[in-house]
Amino acid sequence: MRIYYLIPGPMGAGFDAEAELHRRGSLLRRYAAPGTEIGIGDTAEGPASIESAYEEYLCIPSMVRRAVELEQEGWDALILGCYGDPGLDAMRELLSIPVVGPGEATALVAASLGHRFSILTITRSAVAPMERQMRNVGVGEKLASVRAIDIPVLQLHHDRQRTVSAALVQGRKAIENDRADTLILGCMSMGFLEIAEAIAPELGVPVLNPARVSLKWAEAMVGAGLTHSRLAYMRPPKLASGEARSIEDLFHIAT
Amino acid sequence: MRIYYLIPGPMGAGFDAEAELHRRGSLLRRYAAPGTEIGIGDTAEGPASIESAYEEYLCIPSMVRRAVELEQEGWDALILGCYGDPGLDAMRELLSIPVVGPGEATALVAASLGHRFSILTITRSAVAPMERQMRNVGVGEKLASVRAIDIPVLQLHHDRQRTVSAALVQGRKAIENDRADTLILGCMSMGFLEIAEAIAPELGVPVLNPARVSLKWAEAMVGAGLTHSRLAYMRPPKLASGEARSIEDLFHIAT
Amino acid sequence: MRIYYLIPGPMGAGFDAEAELHRRGSLLRRYAAPGTEIGIGDTAEGPASIESAYEEYLCIPSMVRRAVELEQEGWDALILGCYGDPGLDAMRELLSIPVVGPGEATALVAASLGHRFSILTITRSAVAPMERQMRNVGVGEKLASVRAIDIPVLQLHHDRQRTVSAALVQGRKAIENDRADTLILGCMSMGFLEIAEAIAPELGVPVLNPARVSLKWAEAMVGAGLTHSRLAYMRPPKLASGEARSIEDLFHIAT
Amino acid sequence: MRIYYLIPGPMGAGFDAEAELHRRGSLLRRYAAPGTEIGIGDTAEGPASIESAYEEYLCIPSMVRRAVELEQEGWDALILGCYGDPGLDAMRELLSIPVVGPGEATALVAASLGHRFSILTITRSAVAPMERQMRNVGVGEKLASVRAIDIPVLQLHHDRQRTVSAALVQGRKAIENDRADTLILGCMSMGFLEIAEAIAPELGVPVLNPARVSLKWAEAMVGAGLTHSRLAYMRPPKLASGEARSIEDLFHIAT
Amino acid sequence: MRIYYLIPGPMGAGFDAEAELHRRGSLLRRYAAPGTEIGIGDTAEGPASIESAYEEYLCIPSMVRRAVELEQEGWDALILGCYGDPGLDAMRELLSIPVVGPGEATALVAASLGHRFSILTITRSAVAPMERQMRNVGVGEKLASVRAIDIPVLQLHHDRQRTVSAALVQGRKAIENDRADTLILGCMSMGFLEIAEAIAPELGVPVLNPARVSLKWAEAMVGAGLTHSRLAYMRPPKLASGEARSIEDLFHIAT
Amino acid sequence: MRIYYLIPGPMGAGFDAEAELHRRGSLLRRYAAPGTEIGIGDTAEGPASIESAYEEYLCIPSMVRRAVELEQEGWDALILGCYGDPGLDAMRELLSIPVVGPGEATALVAASLGHRFSILTITRSAVAPMERQMRNVGVGEKLASVRAIDIPVLQLHHDRQRTVSAALVQGRKAIENDRADTLILGCMSMGFLEIAEAIAPELGVPVLNPARVSLKWAEAMVGAGLTHSRLAYMRPPKLASGEARSIEDLFHIAT
Repeated sequence: MRIYYLIPGPMGAGFDAEAELHRRGSLLRRYAAPGTEIGIGDTAEGPASIESAYEEYLCIPSMVRRAVELEQEGWDALILGCYGDPGLDAMRELLSIPVVGPGEATALVAASLGHRFSILTITRSAVAPMERQMRNVGVGEKLASVRAIDIPVLQLHHDRQRTVSAALVQGRKAIENDRADTLILGCMSMGFLEIAEAIAPELGVPVLNPARVSLKWAEAMVGAGLTHSRLAYMRPPKLASGEARSIEDLFHIAT
Repeated sequence: MRIYYLIPGPMGAGFDAEAELHRRGSLLRRYAAPGTEIGIGDTAEGPASIESAYEEYLCIPSMVRRAVELEQEGWDALILGCYGDPGLDAMRELLSIPVVGPGEATALVAASLGHRFSILTITRSAVAPMERQMRNVGVGEKLASVRAIDIPVLQLHHDRQRTVSAALVQGRKAIENDRADTLILGCMSMGFLEIAEAIAPELGVPVLNPARVSLKWAEAMVGAGLTHSRLAYMRPPKLASGEARSIEDLFHIAT
Repeated sequence: MRIYYLIPGPMGAGFDAEAELHRRGSLLRRYAAPGTEIGIGDTAEGPASIESAYEEYLCIPSMVRRAVELEQEGWDALILGCYGDPGLDAMRELLSIPVVGPGEATALVAASLGHRFSILTITRSAVAPMERQMRNVGVGEKLASVRAIDIPVLQLHHDRQRTVSAALVQGRKAIENDRADTLILGCMSMGFLEIAEAIAPELGVPVLNPARVSLKWAEAMVGAGLTHSRLAYMRPPKLASGEARSIEDLFHIAT
Repeated sequence: MRIYYLIPGPMGAGFDAEAELHRRGSLLRRYAAPGTEIGIGDTAEGPASIESAYEEYLCIPSMVRRAVELEQEGWDALILGCYGDPGLDAMRELLSIPVVGPGEATALVAASLGHRFSILTITRSAVAPMERQMRNVGVGEKLASVRAIDIPVLQLHHDRQRTVSAALVQGRKAIENDRADTLILGCMSMGFLEIAEAIAPELGVPVLNPARVSLKWAEAMVGAGLTHSRLAYMRPPKLASGEARSIEDLFHIAT
Repeated sequence: MRIYYLIPGPMGAGFDAEAELHRRGSLLRRYAAPGTEIGIGDTAEGPASIESAYEEYLCIPSMVRRAVELEQEGWDALILGCYGDPGLDAMRELLSIPVVGPGEATALVAASLGHRFSILTITRSAVAPMERQMRNVGVGEKLASVRAIDIPVLQLHHDRQRTVSAALVQGRKAIENDRADTLILGCMSMGFLEIAEAIAPELGVPVLNPARVSLKWAEAMVGAGLTHSRLAYMRPPKLASGEARSIEDLFHIAT
Repeated sequence: MRIYYLIPGPMGAGFDAEAELHRRGSLLRRYAAPGTEIGIGDTAEGPASIESAYEEYLCIPSMVRRAVELEQEGWDALILGCYGDPGLDAMRELLSIPVVGPGEATALVAASLGHRFSILTITRSAVAPMERQMRNVGVGEKLASVRAIDIPVLQLHHDRQRTVSAALVQGRKAIENDRADTLILGCMSMGFLEIAEAIAPELGVPVLNPARVSLKWAEAMVGAGLTHSRLAYMRPPKLASGEARSIEDLFHIAT
């Protein structure tokens, strides 16, 4: 099967985009099951990283257009490369192949591994939105807490050890103060730095890497022949009725 | 006080945009309290109407940029002219004046008028998203149902009587089958057609016009000197730290 | 429009009732929109202040009888002058004009300003009842905490600075320990002492004065032509059937 | 042990009060365990029956004053003789002996007998308030429905067979449409008419008589040496501090 | 009436089983109402004590078989002698007399005594399962916390004073940190050591002994003529259809 | 990887056990990813099929003992072959490899495919227990309904077409009456009859086969290197402390 990991924005603010895309693709290939082909790419425009609702919205139009192309190119499933799942519903309205939201998929897996899970995220601005996201995923009752490690996304790579240390500190607080029995790293960049793998042995609880879990989820959906419900994610009415012939027709410029 | 009603997209697909803007502005002026100045306008680009999650996302970037300008122009409050409240959180991250989401404000008022309210919306594709919206507003326990009248937004104006009849049918079902005691018209176009005013006398329950309620909510916020919490809607971190100097800096084009 | 603020009990235990009524009326007039006429008054009998469920019940019979008179005198809306909203449902059963419950209205406004709000109230005996009240209002999920400043109502006025200090202490705890992003002062006497206005600048979050918010809510209801649903607040059956001709007929004295 | 059943209002509008008090007392004595002494009485003033929130409030002041006397007379527990539990919290603030609210106690027993229970009540005006009551009791998740038989309280006695028939009709609907597996008769007058006993054999599910269940609950509390928590139902602060010496001191008449 | 207390497992690992059964029976007789006959016994096989889900399951088959015999012997109600209520649903499927689950019954009583209750249990392994149990009972919203005293069940008896001290420490934390107003001792062995009676006077809140409360609950059910709903706890289909003639027929051994 | 499907009871009441085990194993091998080895087996004793809580409990002791052996034999993950997940918590207490509960895993997948899912189960006796199961899984808010097709498990195979027809009828009702957008077949026997695959094309929504989904879930867990949290599923204290040396030591026979 062929699974594509789509980064919602142009990779490359502050480091070698080509090399980082290659590195992330290699990791995904290492995680993949036998027979899984991996594609990876970013989009032509969007935010440098996503740390606010505004940046989430900025990434969506380009990402959706690219996703429609990827389905036409024959990929079997897409992974939306941001833990906040921006535009997941829009992608499902327009695509028929499975679209994996890492926030959704990782939380659902966490819900099966224990009774209470905590998410370690990047900035405090993401705490309240992630609480809302988890409620909407449907497993809000199992959320113990969302804790921020307070390092900007674009600085995570510069000092991986500092990121590991901060994740350990917040992970311990989640376990001791918030009674979490399972942890999620709520950021794809942390996933691709394998912070989960670094802290899990010290903490003694499952720590989920959303990049790896999302890939497994995508393989499972394709392997089970499943995709999202069209009754849940209806085609935009103008497309369904034929009034619009393509997603481009849905966008107008005042003249 | 000065309150601006911002339509998220270019008005004018299928009818005289100028005239319709004028008509809606006149209605708002009629609803306004003494001393309230009304502004109204659309945006340069976006969807012709909003009937899907994808169209919600399409409207946000232009709308947010326009909202930032409007704050700089000195308006005291903005009303986001779509019942689904698309991008409300992003607007609040970036603006300091009150931003009224009609879906949020009208539901909160409905929650004070009775025990169970129903929303009459346009298309079936909006039912599940509105249920989620109401849960996120915080009054999901008081939502009796969301019912679609199944007329596309852009056709609402062509036959107002058909819209009134369909709203009456669904309103009665909401009262009798879903035990609603209060109704909301979940679409600004229905608001500006004064469908609420047309059906309320026949149904014998409060029917809320979201355009009118949103204006009253905006007047109340300005009158009480209140706006959203900065702890709830944090500034995007790159702006707060000075790394980005304006919202334009948050958007990148790969080179 | 004409809005009446009804104090549920005789003002005047321990200070100059006439002067205090005048002072509160003046404040309300300062908060009022252009064109709003303010009435204010207390009732002939009831508790000196409301700090328990028992005192809530003691105030209701006189208050309701007075409210029925006020509607007949032509007022457009009433504000029930106690944050606990005692007898709000009974007033709505008997009146057709909007009756504003400050607890209900202020909480609904708070729900629109942030994600989690806390209430600062007077005595510990009010904490559990207010948690229940908020759940019944329908926004219990957004309640971060109720915290008591532990000063009896009738002593609030004697040392305003002590009240301000205690509110600051509990407000900070609500923000830091309970993750509140918005605060409410849950007592009308604190409202009329403008404690909200005193602490908001120091705390950096919205702090809602229930007296001012209730007045704005009343103006909004009258301005929008809305009142409570008769299906939600049914007429007492004996009045609806004509078996009783007035509310006096509902009260019997054994003979 | 000595248990008193307190009717919140003057019995006797429309029929022989003395005889009816005697009949109800006899029934309670039949339900009582060996060694339980039963007292029963009404109050000097209040509503003729309770069918609205307003009538609930009207009954409370007299009932509470009488309850304080009854505790002083040495009764071991009180039963508040109305399914809506009006003033239950106030009684617990002021009394130290167990005060049984039939709505609370019967719903808690129903929660142990099945997964979903329905309440058959008298008038439609009571449906929404009872839903709220059940949520506040804490077992709202197990409430299948509240259904009205639509016969005024004071007419229940005139045609017992009509009451039985109406209860059977609504009970069957609760089982078949609302998936109730357990029923409660939500009215003490229906309890003392033994409607539960009449319909249970035909419906094949437990049907709870709130009069009988309340008596058993009272016996169990006294037998277990339990009463309500003083931390949950705090003494009114003015009484706790000694500022007021009796409950009379809490009530003021403006002079 | 005749009530049987059934210990789910063989009593006697580590102490004199006969004597302990006698001691517990004597306590129950002391708690019983006039006219209640008490039976008590253990089962032929099962775990020595129940501290895990696995041990819960181990106790069920023998316990259920014994319960069926006890019903045939004419007992009026059974008490399942473990706070975790293992196999309560299976017992109700097969029996028609009331089966009291101490966890269920005690929590429902606690829900009537205050607003928030905490459970003091034995081992940390029981905390999460008890939270789930309380949610399933239907009163999860009133659960303040479950706290472990961290003494193995079989050691509780050896040093009763240590058990009392640990219960006092955790009880105080439940009141001060978790805002509990009512406490439950979540272990029958602690019940029969009368730890509740020892700590209640010092803590000033109700502390429920599940052995005593369960007995009162059983007396109340028999006294009210109530038992569980057959619609809620259906007969196993193979028994209902006659395909199996006894519960033994439901168990197969591969041949 | 090596995944074992463990049937909780002796297969073979009413048909050729050997052949059926072989048939189910072949289906699982067809569903498996490249490189997955499948094992399948039943247990020596237990119920013929599981249609009641009592039969759930009957299957657990043998199943758990067999599961412990299977882990020692080196399997990488187990699938518990019953949709009701009986004893899932006990298995996790005792095993370190992933144990997949089909009810849990399939519901979590369904939660990602739509907004509201319904379960089609076998007998009415399973409806209420499955509602509870879904709440405990944590996705109760997304459960639209549980509907029974009312055919005993052991008869499903005799007339597959009747099972398909009954599933179609209930599936349509779930979609139209209960607003389900996604369906689950809540029975492993229906899974191995590929009823999901038969009805999905006609219904136009995803229909999940729990056997296939559970296998994919097991592959994903092993592929991601994840297993359940030891903090959530603690070792039985007697095993953790060394007081018991094996699970056999936890079971006592009175002597």
